[in-house]
Formats: sequence, C-alpha cells, structure tokens
Amino acid sequence: MNDALDTLRGIARDNGVDAVVIVPGANFARLFGGHFMQHERPLLVLVPVDGPPAALVPELELGPFGALGLELDVFDWRDQSGYAPAFEAMLAGRSIRDIGVEGLLMRVFVDQALRAAVPGLKITDLQRALSRVRLHKGDDEIRSLRRAIAMSEAALGETLDAVRVGMTEKAIEQRLVQALFAQGVESLSFPPIVAAGGHSANPHASARDVAVRAGDALLFDLGGRFDGLCADITRTVFVGHADDRHLAIHATVLAANRAGVAAVTPGTTAHAIDDAATAVLEASPFAAHILTRTGHGLGREVHEDPYIMRGNHQVLEPGMVFTVEPGLYVPGEIGVRIEDDVLVTGDGRESLTTFDREARVVAI
Amino acid sequence: MNDALDTLRGIARDNGVDAVVIVPGANFARLFGGHFMQHERPLLVLVPVDGPPAALVPELELGPFGALGLELDVFDWRDQSGYAPAFEAMLAGRSIRDIGVEGLLMRVFVDQALRAAVPGLKITDLQRALSRVRLHKGDDEIRSLRRAIAMSEAALGETLDAVRVGMTEKAIEQRLVQALFAQGVESLSFPPIVAAGGHSANPHASARDVAVRAGDALLFDLGGRFDGLCADITRTVFVGHADDRHLAIHATVLAANRAGVAAVTPGTTAHAIDDAATAVLEASPFAAHILTRTGHGLGREVHEDPYIMRGNHQVLEPGMVFTVEPGLYVPGEIGVRIEDDVLVTGDGRESLTTFDREARVVAI
Repeated sequence: MNDALDTLRGIARDNGVDAVVIVPGANFARLFGGHFMQHERPLLVLVPVDGPPAALVPELELGPFGALGLELDVFDWRDQSGYAPAFEAMLAGRSIRDIGVEGLLMRVFVDQALRAAVPGLKITDLQRALSRVRLHKGDDEIRSLRRAIAMSEAALGETLDAVRVGMTEKAIEQRLVQALFAQGVESLSFPPIVAAGGHSANPHASARDVAVRAGDALLFDLGGRFDGLCADITRTVFVGHADDRHLAIHATVLAANRAGVAAVTPGTTAHAIDDAATAVLEASPFAAHILTRTGHGLGREVHEDPYIMRGNHQVLEPGMVFTVEPGLYVPGEIGVRIEDDVLVTGDGRESLTTFDREARVVAI
Repeated sequence: MNDALDTLRGIARDNGVDAVVIVPGANFARLFGGHFMQHERPLLVLVPVDGPPAALVPELELGPFGALGLELDVFDWRDQSGYAPAFEAMLAGRSIRDIGVEGLLMRVFVDQALRAAVPGLKITDLQRALSRVRLHKGDDEIRSLRRAIAMSEAALGETLDAVRVGMTEKAIEQRLVQALFAQGVESLSFPPIVAAGGHSANPHASARDVAVRAGDALLFDLGGRFDGLCADITRTVFVGHADDRHLAIHATVLAANRAGVAAVTPGTTAHAIDDAATAVLEASPFAAHILTRTGHGLGREVHEDPYIMRGNHQVLEPGMVFTVEPGLYVPGEIGVRIEDDVLVTGDGRESLTTFDREARVVAI
C-alpha cells in the first residue's frame, strides 16, 4: 500500500508537477484497495514530490480509510463545518503550485476547493499518466476478469435460451440482469444493451417496451463486475430466422472481429488492431455503415486505456486487456457488433471471452 | 423540452454568468429526457444568456441526441479528430467569459476543454442553482418513486424471510439484489449495504464473506431505481434474538426517526428536521454514538438537495422528497439506522416508505 505512495510520487516527479491527487475510483482501488465512492463528500489522497503525503477524509469514512494502512497525514472534516478548512490545512506550508489530477474522474468542485486553498494553483490533467498504474493487469486481476466473463457468458446463454418472439426488449433485459446477479456478479459493468431490429443500429441503445419480431437482429452488450473487474461482451443473434443480407453483414463483422483479434501481439500498436479490423469492414459492401472505433481498454473501468483506434500508436504489451468490437450500423435496419475481451500474452493473445461468435438464430 | 432551455437561460441570468453548461446526469435527464451517461466522450448543452443555445455531441450520440427535439446548434465531433475543435467552434464568436456548471458532476477534463477554448474563462460552480430544477418533484416523478419504493420494500421483505443464521452478508446481499431486479427495478440506486454485528456500525459498510450469527443486528440499506427515480430505505433487524441494550438502541433510533418525520411540514426548515431527530438521540444514553446528519434529498440522485442537517435553513416546500435516517453507531458492537423517504405535502408529510419499522427478529 505504501509502495503505491512511492509510485505516485514518481509519477508526479516524471510529469513535472509538485504533487498528484487521487480521488476514489479505479486508480484509487488498484493502488490502495477499499471500497470508496465519489459523492458530495470529497475524499482524496495528495502525494507531493517533496514532503509527506496526506489525505482529506470525511469523518464518516475515517474508519474504512484507516483500514487501508496508509502512512500519511489525515485531514478530516465534518458535514457541519464543511471541507474548505481541511483543504487549507492539508495544503498549508507546502510549496505546491501545480497538482496533477485524474481529469476524467475528478469533479469541478474538488478542483475549485484545491484552487481556493492555493491561490494561483495550476491543475494539470494527468489522467493517462496516473491510469498507467492499471495498464498492465496483475494475475489476481486477470483471475477476477475471467470470473466476471464466465458469469457474464453464462447469463447471456441462459437469456438467449429464454428469448421468444413477442418478448419486449425490456423483459429480455430484466431476465439478463437477473441471470447476471444469480451468477454472482457484484454489479453491472454498465447498463446492458438489448436492442432488436432497427434499434440495434444505435450503438448505445436502451431497452424499450417493444416486442422482438421474427427476422429481427437482436444485439446484446453486457457485462458483470467481479472483485472490481469488468466484463464487456457483445453478441448479435437473430430471432426466428435471418435474411441473407443480414447474415452477410454478420459475416463481415465476424471477419473483422477475427482479423482484429488475430492482429494482437506484443509490440504491435492499438492503431494496427483498429486498422486490421476496420480494413475488413472498409473492403466490404457495407463500408458506409462503420460508426465506431474498434475497442477500448478494459479492467476496473469499462472504458480505459488502451483505446483501440487508428492514430493511437500506443504499443501493446503483455498484461494489457482491451475489447475488439467492430460493428456495422445500418440506420433503421440493423446493427451488428461482435465484441471480445482480449488479453495480450507473452507471445500473442488470448480472447478471455469465448462465447460462440457464429450467427445464431434463437427462438426457433 | 425547449422550455428547459428558457429555464436554464433564466438561471444563467439570475446568477450573473454569461452561460450555463449541463452535462449528462440528473439535471440533464429531468430537463431534456433521454438516457445519456458521462464517459470519456464529452457531451454537453450550453445555454447562454444572449445568443443561441448549442450542444457538443459525439458523433456516436447524434441520433439519440437529435431525438430529444431540442432547438439548438449542434457541434459534433469524432473520436479520430478529438473534441477540442468542437469546443472551439461552439464558443467562437460569442462573448462568454463566465460559465456556470454543475460542480458535483462536471469533470476536470471538460472544465479544461472549455478553458482551452476561451482563454481567461471563469468557471462558476452553480450546482445548487441548477439542481433546483429537480427540487420539486413532478407528479410523474412521485409515481415513479412510489413504484421504486414498492419494489424495494417487496425485495427487502423477501430477503428478510430468507435470512438464516450462518448465511454470509454477501449471500444475503446477492439474494437482495436478485429480488430487486425480479421486482422490476431498472438499476440499483446504490450498492446495497448488508452489515451484521459490529460491522453495522460502519455507515458505509460493504457486505463481507462473513456469516451472520444469532444475536447480531443486521442492517439493510437498499434501493432500486425506476424510471430514473431512486428509492433509499434502511431497516435494522436482529438475527435469532436481540439483547435488551440493542433493543434500547433500536427504540431510541425509532423514536428519533418518528420525531424527524413528524416535524416535516411545509414552511419548516431542513435544520428543524435534523434538530427534531437528533435531539432525541442526544437526550438518550447513547448520545456519544451519533455519527451522521439526519438525511438527504432524494430523486434522480440518491443524494441531492435538500440536505437534512443542522445549519441548513432551507425552507421545506410541497413536492420536496428527502430521507429521514437517524442512526446510532457503537464501534465494534452495533449500528442501527431507520430510514424513510418522506414527501412534503400541502399540509404535512407522507412517508412514501411504509415497511415495518419496529424491532424485528428474523431467522427464528
């Protein structure tokens, strides 16, 4: 745990800031453990290059925070007196002029509380540098991810067996969510997508009170979390029957998925993976219906580095995990996406997701 | 929907800023509808006092965003080119020097993108002023909240019936969560708390792989969301049997809960409710074990205005909803909290939660 403070001190030094601040979230959980959430009561850890690290903790959280066993000065505050005095006390007598923060996570009111305590303070977004602590998954994290994926795939299988023509997207979603929790996930990685027919062409669809019909594509994008790690899997099936055009779209996306996964190997780049998958889509008759990048890193957050997109020349290394999820989206008609969670291994890749990817017809 | 833009323009004017920005979240959902989430792709609505309103939207979300039917200029951006040019285009040619934002919600990277587009820009935290749009619940929101509460109470009842000595907190939590989704909640309002024995003294406990024992207090804090509205209910029961001291603590908390709820009426203040409940705890032999304020507003967020705490002289008005949840927390021994969701009515109050509050012994 106190190694984590050294790691953060190093990141601050390497990035030329006087200190870094970590707020509850994925980096916090990886570095320090515990189960803290961001809410209206600020809680943070401050690690300066010089001088002792400190934490600002609501009185209510002193017990669980103390259980982390971090060697630092704690500045606590109560609801009745507010948090401003604790920010001032924490920063008093230090020569901190520039703080690196998690820009995707830290909220404006915390930024403003820091600035109020140190007039002229510069806040630098070090989200990527700080999130590097999560870029390579530990063995324990891979184990948890495998369990999250196994639970998610089992829940998907149960749900597909239960789909019938005339069920609504919402009823199918409810069944899926119950199956996920029955499998033992601790929470949902994200609200699942269950989208039928033309609705599947919206990459971020929410389930509707609309019945699925024979001939519909039916897209499932789901995942459960286990011990903090997020599964994220998409499969697109067909209800009752599938027409040839839709099967051709599915086959194209599957070929793109396979090309993307096959390209994964240590030393190649995120760009190259997107390029391998997208090139297949571009060479198809459906090239006009490409909408999204190929994938995103996956771990304690469902979207994190490395982002699998052209232009991102980040080199892939063993222990990284990301999604490969090419898709084609024909407005009003059909969306097909096939998403796997891929681990970079010492000499190639392993798809942690193994659920059948072939075009499958359900409710027959 | 376009009335919402007028409302925001009024808030900007009243608070002396040149514009306000709304990001996806509870205010966004109440004002505009839709199902947008904050993630690494910024999406926001900008409403200036002068000039046309605008939105910054990732290309991926253009379809669902368009479906909101807002009359404003849309500046879209793609992953490949990044969002900075869209921020610049959206703010170019406007004389905006001060933007009011949701400080509890907007993240630093959006703040920095706004500042990068307008050198010298001032960002003002207008969280409270902007959240006033949610302070008085509409009839449709009350209906949804009643449904969320009915589902949550039914799930709690089923779970209490299933508790047995020797079950772990985690097993009980899993059963509770499955019951919530089987009831039809769309998501959890928050990760539920199931905490037994001394663990119940931590107000933010997470369920452990620890078996409940006869004589333990067993605290449940849970809620499901329905149509965006959050239930939040706490009950503390006893496993097998309860000793006299624990029953006295429970009776004290219940008296405080009743005093707090009874004090709710239009025209009184949040301070007065906390005072009524806390005075009961303070007058008891357990006064040393008070840890938290009495409650918080409840709606599309599980913590929102009005906060029920001494020093908050906010006047209560019909249509406000908040929790009354006094508790006593004896470290290592027992925590008891009894939480109701209370609606301010035209002439008093209604507790929307009705689940039995008396000391109950389960697993007998």
